[in-house]
Amino acid sequence: MSQILDLVGIFVFALSGALMGVRKRLDAVGMLVLAGMTALGGGVLRDLVLNVRPIAFQSLGYVLVPVAATVIVFFWHPHVARVMPAILVLDAAGLGLFCAVGTEKALEYGLNPLHATLLGVTTAVGGGMLRDVLAGEIPTLLYDRQLYAVPAMLGSGAMAALSAWGLHGWPATLAAAVLAFGLRVTAMRRNWRAPLARGVSE
Amino acid sequence: MSQILDLVGIFVFALSGALMGVRKRLDAVGMLVLAGMTALGGGVLRDLVLNVRPIAFQSLGYVLVPVAATVIVFFWHPHVARVMPAILVLDAAGLGLFCAVGTEKALEYGLNPLHATLLGVTTAVGGGMLRDVLAGEIPTLLYDRQLYAVPAMLGSGAMAALSAWGLHGWPATLAAAVLAFGLRVTAMRRNWRAPLARGVSE
Amino acid sequence: MSQILDLVGIFVFALSGALMGVRKRLDAVGMLVLAGMTALGGGVLRDLVLNVRPIAFQSLGYVLVPVAATVIVFFWHPHVARVMPAILVLDAAGLGLFCAVGTEKALEYGLNPLHATLLGVTTAVGGGMLRDVLAGEIPTLLYDRQLYAVPAMLGSGAMAALSAWGLHGWPATLAAAVLAFGLRVTAMRRNWRAPLARGVSE
Repeated sequence: MSQILDLVGIFVFALSGALMGVRKRLDAVGMLVLAGMTALGGGVLRDLVLNVRPIAFQSLGYVLVPVAATVIVFFWHPHVARVMPAILVLDAAGLGLFCAVGTEKALEYGLNPLHATLLGVTTAVGGGMLRDVLAGEIPTLLYDRQLYAVPAMLGSGAMAALSAWGLHGWPATLAAAVLAFGLRVTAMRRNWRAPLARGVSE
Repeated sequence: MSQILDLVGIFVFALSGALMGVRKRLDAVGMLVLAGMTALGGGVLRDLVLNVRPIAFQSLGYVLVPVAATVIVFFWHPHVARVMPAILVLDAAGLGLFCAVGTEKALEYGLNPLHATLLGVTTAVGGGMLRDVLAGEIPTLLYDRQLYAVPAMLGSGAMAALSAWGLHGWPATLAAAVLAFGLRVTAMRRNWRAPLARGVSE
Repeated sequence: MSQILDLVGIFVFALSGALMGVRKRLDAVGMLVLAGMTALGGGVLRDLVLNVRPIAFQSLGYVLVPVAATVIVFFWHPHVARVMPAILVLDAAGLGLFCAVGTEKALEYGLNPLHATLLGVTTAVGGGMLRDVLAGEIPTLLYDRQLYAVPAMLGSGAMAALSAWGLHGWPATLAAAVLAFGLRVTAMRRNWRAPLARGVSE
């Protein structure tokens, strides 16, 4: 079950990477690289920090799903772009899932709750940041004032808290993922915005 | 033998990094950083994924060769730039060698053929991508439509296939490297181009 | 003692990251990400190469100090910017300390003096380079011709030499750090400049 959810998250993140490739007029290779980086980058960073072999280099699906997403975007990107609102919701689901699963794995490897939360957020937002840097842009989440990292932070923190209270297993993971997902979707709908430093005009 | 070929590949990659430094009007430190990143970055990424200490931090030659390449470019870069056509051929040799050796090392550490191929390509193209990102540019291989990553992919795949068929040792490595090299040189000569997504005009 | 000095270095590096965030008009999340990357990035890279869990994910202070630096810059950045000359001196202290401590840790993990020096320099300058790349700029130290990496190189080399001569412990670390710090401050005062490649006009 969590394996399937994980692959859904990877698929959605890979779509966003491949679409960025189309927008920047990259070729097929560039689209594939951005798709793979977006989908797998956060998990690879997490596993490098945990000092284990990245899961992206152990499981077949982790390689095939970004390839499939790239093929779909290559041939049908106008349709994919048209359903972007739906994709943004799926992306929020991927964000929620990745932060919950990332935090859980970090706790399993013995990190304390604070560092596990930090690593969960890294898992959730790392791939998107790599995508933006490779595409020659400042990572969106650094400046666009949408709440993207903050829901991941709260979801990861919730996962760490639940675990500290002895609540483990997929219900806890799902609860943390749903919290981050709900916050992210609400932030989009209500247009909640991160503050600028005091005195910096909009 | 493979040690010498490896150092030749590092030398050529370091030349391309240092030349990029001259083109971007970086100072001597910037030239050295770009030379080192280009030459060693791919191998460091590979070894981090394999969870072993990067070979660049174990062997003397891996540090000295980029320094030597930087010194040469610092004093004689107009001559080096003039022989760029020859350097592009040497770069293709480096690409072939790095993808074959990278895939071989990944297989030795127990990755399956698909993931070993992926890691071989990472070894071959990772350094150049880091060079471009540090120089403030979108990595060339994402947009320039030349076939650069694709020959590495086929060379890595051939290495993994030969190994799966029980063919090991330097003849197999050399065959895979020559395949990638030949494809890369042919792609340059015939100006083969990677496709853009459907409907994106040139 | 060295723990406190380490946290001072992290604090100063985090200030410089958060200030870069204000300058680029990033939001609060972007300021925090840049602060954390600048402060912790070099040490994380070092620990990944050494194949150990990054210290930033083990110690509470390493997470809290960048948060504190971001809060300070968020509310009082005009004052912080006004004391930038003092901060540049503190940054030089951080540079000296990070290169000495980084080299020492690399030697402890069995790297030879040359590679330990290289890793010490990576520790000292890696965070600032990540900050610049994330902020969409070419890393300052690649082109601005100030001597920034060179003092780190000499400090790291001194640390490795002292250790090779049997001198260990905090007096040796402090001596190497003071050397790099002194060279960096002198380079700033006298405006020493790194050379451009021969024939490249200023």
